[in-house]
Amino acid sequence: MKLYDGGRAPNPRRVTIFLAEKGIDLPKESVDIGKLEQRNDKFTKLNPLQRLPVLELDDGTILTETIAICRYLESIYPDPALFGTDPLDQALIEMWQRRIELNFFSSVAHSFRHLHPAAAELESPQVSEWGRVNQVRAIENMQFLDDHLANSQFIAGDTFTVADITAIVACQFLKPARIEMPEKLSNLRRWFDKMMERPSTAW
Amino acid sequence: MKLYDGGRAPNPRRVTIFLAEKGIDLPKESVDIGKLEQRNDKFTKLNPLQRLPVLELDDGTILTETIAICRYLESIYPDPALFGTDPLDQALIEMWQRRIELNFFSSVAHSFRHLHPAAAELESPQVSEWGRVNQVRAIENMQFLDDHLANSQFIAGDTFTVADITAIVACQFLKPARIEMPEKLSNLRRWFDKMMERPSTAW
Repeated sequence: MKLYDGGRAPNPRRVTIFLAEKGIDLPKESVDIGKLEQRNDKFTKLNPLQRLPVLELDDGTILTETIAICRYLESIYPDPALFGTDPLDQALIEMWQRRIELNFFSSVAHSFRHLHPAAAELESPQVSEWGRVNQVRAIENMQFLDDHLANSQFIAGDTFTVADITAIVACQFLKPARIEMPEKLSNLRRWFDKMMERPSTAW
Repeated sequence: MKLYDGGRAPNPRRVTIFLAEKGIDLPKESVDIGKLEQRNDKFTKLNPLQRLPVLELDDGTILTETIAICRYLESIYPDPALFGTDPLDQALIEMWQRRIELNFFSSVAHSFRHLHPAAAELESPQVSEWGRVNQVRAIENMQFLDDHLANSQFIAGDTFTVADITAIVACQFLKPARIEMPEKLSNLRRWFDKMMERPSTAW
């Protein structure tokens, strides 16, 4: 297997943290998103959607989409389980992963892509009004998470899962998206501080 | 189990088609999205995110998020498999489901929510410029799908899967989103006509 990696961009980072939590070291090829290398001919043949990460299997099969890649890696390296072990746990972890991804993670990504000058080529056209709406939503999503984390050590129950990974990366991208985590969200801050103690999340 | 259903809205429809393909008939309670019933106190207690569908299990556990609900139903009613049967198939189906959902389905939904007067309360504020960007993206996404379907009977390989369901619902929502499927996309049209022959997709 070979992983085409995009460094610090949010989706590649989710796979990097996932691999570190599993203790897996895969052969990697770096693709420089800053130089838009994901749009060159060689990479476009791998993924016509021109996005990272991409996992190339030994038989040449190409897997794209962060969560599809992580799910496949989970099937090969089941321990520790990051997607749950029984059907109900798996469904609840999927629910939380999607709640975070489609709301919080997405709002941070849209804020960055539609407002930051460095994203002008990546996101064309930038719609600044949409970026500002998403900055507000990111705060609302953090409030929702803070309420949830009042009674939960991790995002989805009692163990660290892929839902935590998506939330960690969203939090780490608040700064480039020019959003502050409100001081008063003490549950979210406690959870995030704990997550930053994990070697997998080193920035 | 009881399914809280939102009728013709896109995400509730995905679960409706999924259930019909499995031949499952669940007890249902209708929630009228047109009347914003998903925001009343009773429903907000079930799902603080105020979205449909919601699956309530017999022990009171609440499952939200369309794909999490479908995945749980797949574990209880495995035949026919709509998420694949071996790890690589499952990953490729997940990849295609996400490619459709995060690009095509999402662009159609954003077009509707940001441009249609009937969505003004659902999506506040509406950002019309973002709606128009997504109308263009929906067409680009259909072109991508058309290219893919030149060599594929279904969205993810040789059998009907959850990825087809997401694409079907996106196509069925083109009209309220005021987007036309271009005449020249003959592969996409052939696939969609075939899908419309399935009893599960009756509109």
